[in-house]
Amino acid sequence: MAEQEAGNRREGARFEIASLRFDARGLIPAIAQARSGEVLMMAWMNAESLGETLATGQVTYWSRSRSELWRKGATSGHVQRLVELRVDCDRDCLLLIVDQIGPACHTNRPSCFYTAVRDGAEVVLTEPA
Amino acid sequence: MAEQEAGNRREGARFEIASLRFDARGLIPAIAQARSGEVLMMAWMNAESLGETLATGQVTYWSRSRSELWRKGATSGHVQRLVELRVDCDRDCLLLIVDQIGPACHTNRPSCFYTAVRDGAEVVLTEPA
Repeated sequence: MAEQEAGNRREGARFEIASLRFDARGLIPAIAQARSGEVLMMAWMNAESLGETLATGQVTYWSRSRSELWRKGATSGHVQRLVELRVDCDRDCLLLIVDQIGPACHTNRPSCFYTAVRDGAEVVLTEPA
Repeated sequence: MAEQEAGNRREGARFEIASLRFDARGLIPAIAQARSGEVLMMAWMNAESLGETLATGQVTYWSRSRSELWRKGATSGHVQRLVELRVDCDRDCLLLIVDQIGPACHTNRPSCFYTAVRDGAEVVLTEPA
């Protein structure tokens, strides 16, 4: 039993993008996390952007506002290199372990989650680089 | 300037739930992360569940499938105690730093993100406790 489980863990089943549960818009949320553990951002992917991410090793999201592929860092150079793709139990959320080049946030901060609520007030945790 | 910024960081502005950008369903995604850095799960909140979370210090989500407040761990005991609420730059995603009691995942694993895609195969990273 333990041996069989170890075998499953080593080999696994072929990953199919179509096995994920995309929402009615064909999108799935994707959380980007640095190897350090820092959560950098959350954005959305569709099947095409995930396919491109896996094929190139550089993270591509789907821009909901522009309705187009969003190759993260294409203009800024602040790309995300995919270290590992993880899938949650419901198959409706992705966790991307990444190497982030430069700041992840468009405000020039390492993480998009840069304010915290403390004693009822919202405080800024990090300033732009 | 530096002094002023330090002052802003200390005091901040009063946090208003209504300042967040909820989607058309009145929901906002919330990522739960342990103090260790481990990303535990992603679920959804509405204004009411966030208000209850802040008031009680125990994380309450909104269950989309049951259309009701989901007091995480109410039946299992696997509650999440809120350590800190963080908000992202677009104000449309939350990061909850939590103390997780027991496993976060309904499969009895510490994290819901327990499979990874490696060499085209999906492998299981952790077994149920």
